[in-house]
Amino acid sequence: MRITTPTLLLDREKCLHNIGRMVEKAKKSNIRLRPHFKTHQSAQVGEWFRSFGVEAITVSSLRMARYFANHGWNDIMVAFPANILEIESINELAARIQLHLLAVNPETVELLAGSLKHSVGIWLKIDAGYRRTGILPNDHAELDKILNKIKQSDKLHFQGFVVHDGHTYKQPDTEAIHTIHKTSVYLLQLLRERYKSQFPALQLSVGDTPSCSIVNDLSGVDEIRPGNFVFYDLTQQRIGSCTFDDIAVCMACPVVAKHADRGEIVLYGGSVHFSKDNLPQQNSTVIYGLMVELNGKGWTAPVEGLALVSLSQEHSVVKASPEQFDKYHIGDLMFVLPVHSCLTADLMKGYLTLEGERLEHLSGVPQQEVLL
Amino acid sequence: MRITTPTLLLDREKCLHNIGRMVEKAKKSNIRLRPHFKTHQSAQVGEWFRSFGVEAITVSSLRMARYFANHGWNDIMVAFPANILEIESINELAARIQLHLLAVNPETVELLAGSLKHSVGIWLKIDAGYRRTGILPNDHAELDKILNKIKQSDKLHFQGFVVHDGHTYKQPDTEAIHTIHKTSVYLLQLLRERYKSQFPALQLSVGDTPSCSIVNDLSGVDEIRPGNFVFYDLTQQRIGSCTFDDIAVCMACPVVAKHADRGEIVLYGGSVHFSKDNLPQQNSTVIYGLMVELNGKGWTAPVEGLALVSLSQEHSVVKASPEQFDKYHIGDLMFVLPVHSCLTADLMKGYLTLEGERLEHLSGVPQQEVLL
Repeated sequence: MRITTPTLLLDREKCLHNIGRMVEKAKKSNIRLRPHFKTHQSAQVGEWFRSFGVEAITVSSLRMARYFANHGWNDIMVAFPANILEIESINELAARIQLHLLAVNPETVELLAGSLKHSVGIWLKIDAGYRRTGILPNDHAELDKILNKIKQSDKLHFQGFVVHDGHTYKQPDTEAIHTIHKTSVYLLQLLRERYKSQFPALQLSVGDTPSCSIVNDLSGVDEIRPGNFVFYDLTQQRIGSCTFDDIAVCMACPVVAKHADRGEIVLYGGSVHFSKDNLPQQNSTVIYGLMVELNGKGWTAPVEGLALVSLSQEHSVVKASPEQFDKYHIGDLMFVLPVHSCLTADLMKGYLTLEGERLEHLSGVPQQEVLL
Repeated sequence: MRITTPTLLLDREKCLHNIGRMVEKAKKSNIRLRPHFKTHQSAQVGEWFRSFGVEAITVSSLRMARYFANHGWNDIMVAFPANILEIESINELAARIQLHLLAVNPETVELLAGSLKHSVGIWLKIDAGYRRTGILPNDHAELDKILNKIKQSDKLHFQGFVVHDGHTYKQPDTEAIHTIHKTSVYLLQLLRERYKSQFPALQLSVGDTPSCSIVNDLSGVDEIRPGNFVFYDLTQQRIGSCTFDDIAVCMACPVVAKHADRGEIVLYGGSVHFSKDNLPQQNSTVIYGLMVELNGKGWTAPVEGLALVSLSQEHSVVKASPEQFDKYHIGDLMFVLPVHSCLTADLMKGYLTLEGERLEHLSGVPQQEVLL
């Protein structure tokens, strides 16, 4: 297939390998893998998960839940504080699948209880240290208050506690990630102790790609919900979650201009393709991607002497060593490992596998196909 | 219309006012306004421009050119170094509209000359100081070389020189923007002097929203190509290109969680809606948006005591003063002026006017509708 504009390539083999490894790890730890589908948002990649026996999934919006429900997924957690304004969508989904929602505030539980027409599983989101959102694990008064409201509803079925340790993304070493993960598991177990007499079946769910990739023994909880691991990216490689070789997506970008005086190559491919996430470098600059070369089987490790150093809306600029600069010409393609695969995939709205197959991404699916 | 998920509101009156003011300024300066349509990417907003007599437009991709050509635009400049890999698309467009392309390198001109089937206008992109891409205005050898190649082609018709002063976005004061604009006009006029005997009809084109908004007398060139001014945003307000009152787009985001202990409100609306562009603050933090309130006519100026201070993929966090914190409840909407309207519009894939009309954005138009 001839590539003429920025295109997101997907190495199916690497992707299947990433999925298989996480499936194995969950099995060994005797816990459920409920992968987060917000990274790929693709019905076809979802099928790859299904082929490994995965049955329960995580999404980050009700639209995403509808999309995957339409593709046969029946056990879906929307890992986002329930948006009461979408009650119609919640009711529509709750009528046909096992829907799991998250609550952070008693008001949300009250509003849900007052307008749900079908049963949903409800989880309390615990803030174990990330400080984005969630109930503090020591705020027993708030927890008791919310749980009492849940008990009064015949539509809300308390499932347990969820944590998302997003601060693992910012850690300087893997030891810190071990500590964060252990802390979360410990805090969740304290909560289980406190509430198991009232809710004997309550479950514990954690999930972020750094912890789930780096920590070998994930036991102590019932479920993990990593997402990014399906593709990985330069951020995860930096954290230590994966090697360069595990990164399963790569941007192909046309060379549109060259500047020999400063060793810069201008690519078609900008912030509307990559997103603006960057990776700080030791010299206090940032990069937006690293270049690889295609080989017979896929792509190589990053090439020395090339880096994506700036992004505009549609352009990007590659800084090139003299040797690398001379290798590329106007009309060539350059191949770039992205800094943040979730956002790049969302912007690219689809994939091209190395076998030439087009896979969809929800953001490229016409709005009306997933409307309520 | 009931809003239940992040939605980009468009104030048609403000937008028409922004368009009208730029149209007037161009008229007064006796130059052509060739607005850049990459900010709105909307057929309907395009019609508003047409109602002001605008006939020539700028876009940043061939896909965008096809979209607007399909909507009746016949004079389109693709203000991006010509991507020779899209020669099929170039030929298809050149057959039906007056297509203008940009070149930076002689290789591009050679490749175009060898494969064009129809006439196109060709402009040389000059780097007047931004240093992203373009030919340096003093690089006469390179200019001569490219122009000689253009002269040898019967399909390439040299139109003149274009500059985009993207560095105006980074200037600390409006005086710097005046100087940058004057410098570019001066450099372009030197080029005209040098080449007018060979190309008596050659034209000069500049265009960035800060210069075109801040400089009153834009004469000295033939054409301006600003784009962002159609909506403006917080970045332009900071630069001095507009007032808060000129900002014509605003995000509506549901409140999904509240954290009284730290005065934080969690919104449904994250980096997949806003983009990650931010605005540095004096205390060395950054913000991703400022809150306004809806009133009968549209929205207010930013409200004191509220700011969007962090973004995840689907969430964002508002820092609120105690007084403001108490005003908002789970299930309310908050209204946010965006930092960078071009990227927000691209991600939101469409608009809702204050009158309740849905307008399209190219990124929400199904791929197959604009395929070659």
